[in-house]
Amino acid sequence: MDVSRDEVFQRIADELGYSFDGEMKIGGNYVPLVRNGDEIYISGQIPRVGDTVVVTGRAGADVDLDEGRRAARICTMRALAILRQSLGSLDHVRKVLRITVYVQSASDFTQQSEVADSASEVLYAVFSSAGVHTRTSVGVYQLPKNASVEIDMIVAANTVETAPGA
Amino acid sequence: MDVSRDEVFQRIADELGYSFDGEMKIGGNYVPLVRNGDEIYISGQIPRVGDTVVVTGRAGADVDLDEGRRAARICTMRALAILRQSLGSLDHVRKVLRITVYVQSASDFTQQSEVADSASEVLYAVFSSAGVHTRTSVGVYQLPKNASVEIDMIVAANTVETAPGA
Amino acid sequence: MDVSRDEVFQRIADELGYSFDGEMKIGGNYVPLVRNGDEIYISGQIPRVGDTVVVTGRAGADVDLDEGRRAARICTMRALAILRQSLGSLDHVRKVLRITVYVQSASDFTQQSEVADSASEVLYAVFSSAGVHTRTSVGVYQLPKNASVEIDMIVAANTVETAPGA
Repeated sequence: MDVSRDEVFQRIADELGYSFDGEMKIGGNYVPLVRNGDEIYISGQIPRVGDTVVVTGRAGADVDLDEGRRAARICTMRALAILRQSLGSLDHVRKVLRITVYVQSASDFTQQSEVADSASEVLYAVFSSAGVHTRTSVGVYQLPKNASVEIDMIVAANTVETAPGA
Repeated sequence: MDVSRDEVFQRIADELGYSFDGEMKIGGNYVPLVRNGDEIYISGQIPRVGDTVVVTGRAGADVDLDEGRRAARICTMRALAILRQSLGSLDHVRKVLRITVYVQSASDFTQQSEVADSASEVLYAVFSSAGVHTRTSVGVYQLPKNASVEIDMIVAANTVETAPGA
Repeated sequence: MDVSRDEVFQRIADELGYSFDGEMKIGGNYVPLVRNGDEIYISGQIPRVGDTVVVTGRAGADVDLDEGRRAARICTMRALAILRQSLGSLDHVRKVLRITVYVQSASDFTQQSEVADSASEVLYAVFSSAGVHTRTSVGVYQLPKNASVEIDMIVAANTVETAPGA
């Protein structure tokens, strides 16, 4: 292929206007990523950039579909940034297995799948067929820090000489 | 045993009055099923038959417990239909590992477990002890297309010469 | 180390004022724990002690943050009790991989992470670095039996001569 996964990642980061190079530290006695064999679990990601949650409120009330989709893109990019920092390159991802997309929803907002589509689009743009995954999207009542979207992920890694996870 | 898993599947489909033989395609850059080693992840299933979501609205308000339970049965049958199409037969399922049951709930509806029981009953009817699983059931605020229930699943497959998943 | 994991477990049980030695049976055609290879899935646990759910209602409305945190501790201890009963000792847990923390939330309650922190603290107290996990915490609209918190878990076990799971 002409363009590497890491280059596509950077292009999408540029389009969003955010850097995802910073420390992906999250507080407490948990970590962004744990590996078990070839499976990698990634903690739920909200659309936080630096110290700011950049998309907050209910989809269908405080934020519209487009904003919800932007939030899902940022969550996904955070998960990929964590993978990249841990594995060294997104080339070491063999397959995205599962994403769960939680959308803080208004009572009558039923487009959780349409929000989640933007996460799926990022994964396909970066990984092509290796990014085609299973998905669950649901509408929740609240999310940490009033985030509009939260996404967690399980991926399979290539069996390489990396030492990821904590 | 007298009756095969695939025959029990068909009997339950007949009782529900729906065919689950159609294309289980779901849109976007994700797929109904991904396999990694012996583990198979199945995307969240809503009670859709053909193009129609046949049970919509909040359990405890728009739909009663019985309708919620019917929705959970249909979700489960969709997941099994996906497995059957991919593996060729439900005989290739070794163990159901985990189901998560999301119930679109009224504010005071607390019978999510009772809704989920009907999913567990289908799994036990089809798989006997191999269908005895772990379960999480929660009450969510909305679901895609106003579905009353959404269920996702992880199962272990026999190590057979199949080529499932995308 | 001076104090075993099972001893720390017992100390926290004493602090909470509950015994977790009883039968962890949950009804229906599902089980508290299923093992597949080295991965162990644990069903969603609510803060039930005996037949009583000891913390009910919405965080941020019916219960305050401290009560929500107490609920999360009890859910976590139930999961550990299930592991201990199945594996014989918590020493056979190699790594906590993932916890999902569902908090029944008021509309404007956004401290799901702070509730989940108390679950993470129990895991770290018992397992030290082996208890450092990935985490997703969300605010849901209802939970079974009006529970304030529900937590499920995936852990990796040591490959030992145990016969856990159902």
